[in-house]
Amino acid sequence: MRSFVVVAHKAVTTPFSLNDLPGGAGRMDIVARCVNASLFLSHGMRRDVDFYAILLGEPNPPVTIRFNGERVRYLSPDERSAASLIKKALERGAPSSGEDESTPGVYISKRSFEDVINGLDDVIYLHEDGEDFRNIELKGDEAFVLSDHQNLTPEEESVLEKKGARKASLGKRLYHADHCIVIVNHELDMREKLK
Amino acid sequence: MRSFVVVAHKAVTTPFSLNDLPGGAGRMDIVARCVNASLFLSHGMRRDVDFYAILLGEPNPPVTIRFNGERVRYLSPDERSAASLIKKALERGAPSSGEDESTPGVYISKRSFEDVINGLDDVIYLHEDGEDFRNIELKGDEAFVLSDHQNLTPEEESVLEKKGARKASLGKRLYHADHCIVIVNHELDMREKLK
Repeated sequence: MRSFVVVAHKAVTTPFSLNDLPGGAGRMDIVARCVNASLFLSHGMRRDVDFYAILLGEPNPPVTIRFNGERVRYLSPDERSAASLIKKALERGAPSSGEDESTPGVYISKRSFEDVINGLDDVIYLHEDGEDFRNIELKGDEAFVLSDHQNLTPEEESVLEKKGARKASLGKRLYHADHCIVIVNHELDMREKLK
Repeated sequence: MRSFVVVAHKAVTTPFSLNDLPGGAGRMDIVARCVNASLFLSHGMRRDVDFYAILLGEPNPPVTIRFNGERVRYLSPDERSAASLIKKALERGAPSSGEDESTPGVYISKRSFEDVINGLDDVIYLHEDGEDFRNIELKGDEAFVLSDHQNLTPEEESVLEKKGARKASLGKRLYHADHCIVIVNHELDMREKLK
């Protein structure tokens, strides 16, 4: 199972207005675009992908939302659609332990970034100082970690270091998190083709 | 100047509600994501890019909206932001000839797909039957043509054929138009790096 993990430092942890994703919802627009980039092909879903958003905004962080490409329903490509499923999850609220399914294929929990990372196997941190992504060995079932519009904090980076995450770079230019996810998915598709 | 041209077969040609981009506005969400994919880097704009959307929906097609990366202002990455600049352009309306600037760096005209294509130089049609994109020769200032959720019509394809457009494929999988644009921009960035 391939995974994408996005740390959303300001994304709110309470239901929000769908008409103001960048402002009132704490850059929830970024999270919504990352859902799209992780899961959508032109005709269908990437069923082998889990997408995690770690919401760290007020009032009740952390909250982790997971979208599973195999099971997700009612998801369209537009930002509002992904955001509305996140909003539904927040309306339900996170259980005190484990994760609840708020709508088919969408899950909510109180897991922290560290909890999520420690539950994954091979972790790759997308970072400008990493090795050239096109040259690193990949099986396609790695977990790729990205930040939103802010960098990961030193504490978050040390979680990755303890986990033994590899660092990989997509080039000299810096891209939005959702663009990074598109590029990673495409590179992995190209490698599949070569098999 | 690099260009992206997206044919939006159902996108409306009159002001629309920002709360229903996929429905009432005729998949204007696709156009908005393509604006983002064409122009945004993590810290700033791609200033060497022109983005064209050919709107072919009711009531008054065709309308062409152009975003210029060098001059554009008031554009944020979220769908609603790009859509609101398109809406402002439609509120102004297209002039009977030439193009008008509705907000800084956003232009509206009555140009058809054929008019736009014939005004561009080296045209590349992104299509599954094309040559492998990673192997074709590119200078970086080509015009890349994509369709929205519907294929180009035979008439639109014949415009490209008359123009002598090359066909290029991004792989065996089919991607949404905005994902294609991200992949093209990244490939061109990678080639720049090798220079």
